Amino acid sequence: MQRTLIKNSPNLIGEKIKICGFVYSRRDHGGVVFLDVKDRSGVLQVVCVPDLVTDVKDEYVVEIEGEIKKRPPKMSNSEIETGEIEMKAEKVKILNTAENLPFDFKDLKCRLPKLLDYRPLTLRNDKIKAIFKVQEEIIASFRSVLKEMGFTQFESPAIVPICAEGGAEVFHIDYFKNDAYLAQSPQLYKQILVPVFERVFTITKAYRAEPSITTRHLTEYISLDAEMGFIDSWEELMDVCENVIKKIFLQIEKNCSKELKLHNASLPLIEKNIPRLKMREAQEIISKRTGRNRRQELDLDPEDEKEICQFVKEKYQSDLVFITHYPTKKRPFYTYPDPENSDYTLSFDLLFRGLEVVTGGKRIHQYQKLVDNIKKWGNKIEDFEFYLQAFKYGMPPEGGFAFGAERVTKQILGLQNIREASLFPRDMTRIDTRLINNSSTSFKK
Amino acid sequence: MQRTLIKNSPNLIGEKIKICGFVYSRRDHGGVVFLDVKDRSGVLQVVCVPDLVTDVKDEYVVEIEGEIKKRPPKMSNSEIETGEIEMKAEKVKILNTAENLPFDFKDLKCRLPKLLDYRPLTLRNDKIKAIFKVQEEIIASFRSVLKEMGFTQFESPAIVPICAEGGAEVFHIDYFKNDAYLAQSPQLYKQILVPVFERVFTITKAYRAEPSITTRHLTEYISLDAEMGFIDSWEELMDVCENVIKKIFLQIEKNCSKELKLHNASLPLIEKNIPRLKMREAQEIISKRTGRNRRQELDLDPEDEKEICQFVKEKYQSDLVFITHYPTKKRPFYTYPDPENSDYTLSFDLLFRGLEVVTGGKRIHQYQKLVDNIKKWGNKIEDFEFYLQAFKYGMPPEGGFAFGAERVTKQILGLQNIREASLFPRDMTRIDTRLINNSSTSFKK
Repeated sequence: MQRTLIKNSPNLIGEKIKICGFVYSRRDHGGVVFLDVKDRSGVLQVVCVPDLVTDVKDEYVVEIEGEIKKRPPKMSNSEIETGEIEMKAEKVKILNTAENLPFDFKDLKCRLPKLLDYRPLTLRNDKIKAIFKVQEEIIASFRSVLKEMGFTQFESPAIVPICAEGGAEVFHIDYFKNDAYLAQSPQLYKQILVPVFERVFTITKAYRAEPSITTRHLTEYISLDAEMGFIDSWEELMDVCENVIKKIFLQIEKNCSKELKLHNASLPLIEKNIPRLKMREAQEIISKRTGRNRRQELDLDPEDEKEICQFVKEKYQSDLVFITHYPTKKRPFYTYPDPENSDYTLSFDLLFRGLEVVTGGKRIHQYQKLVDNIKKWGNKIEDFEFYLQAFKYGMPPEGGFAFGAERVTKQILGLQNIREASLFPRDMTRIDTRLINNSSTSFKK
Repeated sequence: MQRTLIKNSPNLIGEKIKICGFVYSRRDHGGVVFLDVKDRSGVLQVVCVPDLVTDVKDEYVVEIEGEIKKRPPKMSNSEIETGEIEMKAEKVKILNTAENLPFDFKDLKCRLPKLLDYRPLTLRNDKIKAIFKVQEEIIASFRSVLKEMGFTQFESPAIVPICAEGGAEVFHIDYFKNDAYLAQSPQLYKQILVPVFERVFTITKAYRAEPSITTRHLTEYISLDAEMGFIDSWEELMDVCENVIKKIFLQIEKNCSKELKLHNASLPLIEKNIPRLKMREAQEIISKRTGRNRRQELDLDPEDEKEICQFVKEKYQSDLVFITHYPTKKRPFYTYPDPENSDYTLSFDLLFRGLEVVTGGKRIHQYQKLVDNIKKWGNKIEDFEFYLQAFKYGMPPEGGFAFGAERVTKQILGLQNIREASLFPRDMTRIDTRLINNSSTSFKK
């Protein structure tokens, strides 16, 4: 007999079918045993005589043949798709056993470190699993909206010879007696490809040797990176970015209603445009609202980001805000300076419910200007010769942006910690299991 | 004036438009200059009076306004989409200059190492660029066919604590005073996710510290990895794999005819099913055909792969063949032994025009059997405890396969060297530029 997916069972009342799945729960009621059996498509109540399922326990893998029947009216459950039916088991085959569960993973009362220690098991929890359905949809929407806009997808290398974003937060690789690093971003490669394809994007990993434990940082994260040439103005980049995030929200709303409900989450409504504020304007507002003088700071800190989002929410009823014109000193060498004041750049961050989820901006496309900046930032020109070829031989005005996929996931679902939004989160204390030299498990905000 | 994409220009005869692009070539004919201007959508001939374009050279980035006119009949070119029209330039603005080109990158006569040294420039060559359009399509088809079959896409980590595939060919990372490695494959993670999603796939990077220079190996490559639970038989895995490769070919045929033509390439016709041979049968055939006794070897070598493909081509008119039942000794610990003879495994490779492009097989899904094998392969159980959770708490019969995206690209287009099929190929002598300690540039077959 061919396997039937559980979601198709409600149309098969009176028929004998075979289902395959995991025992989600077992309830013994005297002369009868109820199994909830789950497969990738849904869950089904199976009624068994005890002899058929003597050994069967939670998470056993089973193949069951039986007849689909309508449930007695008072037993029906309108909460689930198969709530009007059940299977009367005739044949139960155990495909694989499971050991006794170390704790009840269907109940999420335990703390995050324990949930992560048992990740292969706890990922089976419906609510946790839902996070990654939403993440898959975020990534798929990012891809499809950019494809519609004429972008070409490419695969960016992770093993790189230089550090694009500067700073010390980089992982070193032993590469056949040479030095190599894990890419901090696909920045240089997406720029190199602008003269080739004009508009490109990549869904790739970025690596940061973050020496701190916060609820916002991972050492390995999914970067959704886009870059486009022939821009008329740098504001065009924010327009495209805004279009992308709106399409992501639309797709999540359309395809993930069940998952949103599980997390009691609702999508932001963006009726008009996302407000845009200069960083100095934002600091003025924050300083006035909080009494903390933030006017001279070179960047917004996490508290500032929360505060300005609060302000924008109150004033514009928006969950999102673009902050623009970050100081030149705080941005990488390739960032385009504001022609009106070169202390600032034509760059932006997109904040979403108090957290930065996108960074972007116009880039320097003139060869000599870029060479000067590489030196000014303390880099060696010879390290950047490969990258510089793209500019030496003709580069249009261009720019781009990058979404952190885990951060977008976290903010949509209202998760407390970025680790919840990564299937297998890596930080300085953990790669799957806890690392010996770093056993701390408390998180900074 | 808004920019018009070049591909739309044939419908705008008599209208004034603005195009933006790169100067692909410049031809001076006395009182008139012809520019071929390229954007992401096509190429257009622009007729200019010399004064308008005094400084303009190849690869300059320009914005040109002018009128679209029909070409004189004897000047038309049926080879290109805009061959019946041209633009009469009225205003030319240089958006960016380009230095003199170091060599003619439109002509591919130079050797591969030089083409790679100048990758940011040579990727602009139409024929080279076409390779990555085909690759994008291969990856997109892989994704769409699996989504249709109920697979969930996930993102697999690259920083890992253990070596899944064994062997010494692994890159070490300095991870906050701990040991970590670059993933040789997403194998363990896709298996962990089988009880979560049943059917999963990932488009990810795999890393092999290959200490040799061949035309078939990269140190960083794109792995298209799928894994599925509740298989009825291990042959089902080959059926799915066959379905995937057929869909890939169909999509390439549909969407990449121009690119195939540029490479003078044709897709294999698979009228019926892909033939399946046991490795020992293949060795018998090879031994008879060549007189070289290959009967006792534990694997096929590159020459064997070519020879058996030649045989299959002659006998079955097929460009593809599955080789099955590789020896247990040559496969990783997780491979399912053949119940009829445990010296062999329920595993397969797919060979395509003489090269292995897919590896797959059924996996051991029983906890104790897997524990025994991990030990037998010389690994420590404690290193695999995280992975083993997935089996301890219920795992269905399962298996999967992985396509090497660059190899599929290479074989479809008939490229000589795998490096041609990687945007930024990495090997022991090169990460973008050549590495100092390894200056050899000759390739083994």
